[in-house]
Amino acid sequence: MIVWNEVSESMQKSALCRPAIAVSEKVMAVTTSIIESVKNQGDEALLEMAKNFDNRKSPRLLVPQEEIEQSTSALSTELKEAIERAYQNIRTFHECQKPSDISVKTQPGVDCMLKFQAIESVGLYVPGGSAPLPSSVLMQGVCAQLAGVKTIVLATPVKGDDSIHPAILYAAKLCGINTIVEAGGAGAIAAMALGTSTIPKVNKVFGPGNSYVTMAKQLLSQQLPGFAIDMPAGPSEVLVIADDGANPAFIAADLLSQAEHGEDSQVILLCTSESVIQETKVEIGQQLKALSRANIARAALENSSFILTESLEQAFSISAEYGPEHLILQIRRADDYLDQVKNAGSVFVGDFTPESAGDYASGTNHVLPTYGYSKVYSSLNLLDFYRTYTVQQITQNGLQELSRAILPLAEAEGLDAHANAVTIRLGVQQ
Amino acid sequence: MIVWNEVSESMQKSALCRPAIAVSEKVMAVTTSIIESVKNQGDEALLEMAKNFDNRKSPRLLVPQEEIEQSTSALSTELKEAIERAYQNIRTFHECQKPSDISVKTQPGVDCMLKFQAIESVGLYVPGGSAPLPSSVLMQGVCAQLAGVKTIVLATPVKGDDSIHPAILYAAKLCGINTIVEAGGAGAIAAMALGTSTIPKVNKVFGPGNSYVTMAKQLLSQQLPGFAIDMPAGPSEVLVIADDGANPAFIAADLLSQAEHGEDSQVILLCTSESVIQETKVEIGQQLKALSRANIARAALENSSFILTESLEQAFSISAEYGPEHLILQIRRADDYLDQVKNAGSVFVGDFTPESAGDYASGTNHVLPTYGYSKVYSSLNLLDFYRTYTVQQITQNGLQELSRAILPLAEAEGLDAHANAVTIRLGVQQ
Repeated sequence: MIVWNEVSESMQKSALCRPAIAVSEKVMAVTTSIIESVKNQGDEALLEMAKNFDNRKSPRLLVPQEEIEQSTSALSTELKEAIERAYQNIRTFHECQKPSDISVKTQPGVDCMLKFQAIESVGLYVPGGSAPLPSSVLMQGVCAQLAGVKTIVLATPVKGDDSIHPAILYAAKLCGINTIVEAGGAGAIAAMALGTSTIPKVNKVFGPGNSYVTMAKQLLSQQLPGFAIDMPAGPSEVLVIADDGANPAFIAADLLSQAEHGEDSQVILLCTSESVIQETKVEIGQQLKALSRANIARAALENSSFILTESLEQAFSISAEYGPEHLILQIRRADDYLDQVKNAGSVFVGDFTPESAGDYASGTNHVLPTYGYSKVYSSLNLLDFYRTYTVQQITQNGLQELSRAILPLAEAEGLDAHANAVTIRLGVQQ
Repeated sequence: MIVWNEVSESMQKSALCRPAIAVSEKVMAVTTSIIESVKNQGDEALLEMAKNFDNRKSPRLLVPQEEIEQSTSALSTELKEAIERAYQNIRTFHECQKPSDISVKTQPGVDCMLKFQAIESVGLYVPGGSAPLPSSVLMQGVCAQLAGVKTIVLATPVKGDDSIHPAILYAAKLCGINTIVEAGGAGAIAAMALGTSTIPKVNKVFGPGNSYVTMAKQLLSQQLPGFAIDMPAGPSEVLVIADDGANPAFIAADLLSQAEHGEDSQVILLCTSESVIQETKVEIGQQLKALSRANIARAALENSSFILTESLEQAFSISAEYGPEHLILQIRRADDYLDQVKNAGSVFVGDFTPESAGDYASGTNHVLPTYGYSKVYSSLNLLDFYRTYTVQQITQNGLQELSRAILPLAEAEGLDAHANAVTIRLGVQQ
């Protein structure tokens, strides 16, 4: 435990220090060569990688429509209803984010509009690994569906003799996704960004992934005009602010549910009560025993800090400086403190709002800025699937009046042709 | 002139091909070393660069408050009023873009909110060069002011014995900007991104610039957690769609007002009338004679294409594929065609709406995605100065009900601790 006011500034810094993201030369070289081979050999390159990296004997690239349709029957009623409930809540929350075009007459005869248009095609990536992640499909897919994106491609890896878990297929089906690519890693990202004969080229790729996926997203967004990615990626993290009335068992459960994500997860507790901190540590020890991913959680806890603050105000100011992905408030009258929240991706208020509610089903999006990027990036939202552009329409009289602003500015900036485009229209060509 | 339907696909491609942006090793090396020196020597490095690169004898970093205040008196009434009118129109258009927090009960006992918070600190870059660019201050500064950004830093270069043009200072004053840095290039960008003893560190840097500025923005946004930039930069461009009723003199004036920006500007005319294309070329020759920047415009015209299309529909489809920064519609009943517009940054509708209106004073933002990025990036708007985050608050009963969605999903994803954070709260710990 660190007593914030009693340690040096450098100790304070190191308590909030995130594990460094090493940019490995190897990851960059491998990713670059994967991108090249997808660019040159398209589908063939993907099929080769499926054999070599994923041990697939007779790989295929697209899931047939019937398999997507039939996914429902392979699910337990319980899981099917859970996916449907999560889908509905996420949809309800994101539906309210639909933007409206704006139209303003800035002065007589000068009409200006801000218009929203869905991005034409997007790629959604869902990582594989030890378990299927239907929630990751829903968080991305609901947005693409609500925005009315014309072409939605979903890619997810398949290993060996496996097939894509029906929970993934069913979540995709609810989101109206018909193009599901059986490919993972940098190859899948490159295929969506560049297009192949089988896989449509998309304008923006979303979703989390391993270091190759992250590198491919980064490289392609730098190299490819007209292509973009959702946000920079880093390890997941939670910061809990607690007071002396908080329940140590709840705090421990929240810290552990973040810690089990991965060994590089970071969990931080800022608490005004020394005894709550001590009891939380005891609870963590107890709860760890029952967890299947206890080893991962234990490793993550090594990167973590338990900090005693002199006040809640101090805790909020430390949190603002850190900029956590998830911020949990286990304090009395927690909603009175919402105005003090700065630089957090998603906030969980009060005793009965665990992070896992937002991870799956409350309706908020679980794709959030990590690694301090919550200072400047947004939680994933419907607008990420739109682009805005402006339109202006000016009458002859409107332009006459507006010329009194345009002409002196064009002159000051030394741009004659800018002035000429106005004067020639007003018949006062000089 | 190219007759679209009569040339090969590869000729079509090359007619729309943008000049390649060479990533120069030299620019990268110089920029990297500038960033390093600002990181290590702070203000000292900036003062050194002012002496060496900008030939300043006794450089200073900040403009004193009195100079900003007194800028008004150094301006002609005409230019002062032009800046004020432009400021007011830009403000009117962007004020309507203010976002509102959203609050939704996704199911009983489950409250979810989407909240907007202004980014805490931003840096605005205004390039120097042959003429001052007060319009560039207004386009960025009005947004920062309306969003309520707490710390706004403006940086612009000063050469030799010059001082910052009063038009720049006055535009900054209207936008409530007090921190004006006399520095340019990669050094200015690094100073704002990293902070020095004199210059506040910011979270996001906006604004155009030369290749060193662009490289510094790119490198710093990759290296610095919690730091972001506005959008990728490329040369400016315009695409005009015209029919047989269009006025060739107006078309020529619009093409030239884009061409005079820089030698790498690109201008494209898509027209359904061969005679309008021929007359436009003659007009260009005439109008060029009177332009002070005729040499720049002539060079830009080398990269340009005059294309005869069989129909307006074909023209709109070529434009959507190209994704122009500026799209000008000089066609009859132009507003009937707005639904056909795709992938444009800003659209200028009808005979009396020249691009220069939007560049300066109509109210729309002139910071726009170039180089095909209008397929996926937005025109600069008020939301670029905000971040969004979510908040959720769940009651005990709400969590009980929601657990039916959370628990099966946590189980399917193999995340015990996620489930435990719910069950422990519901008193049904397993």
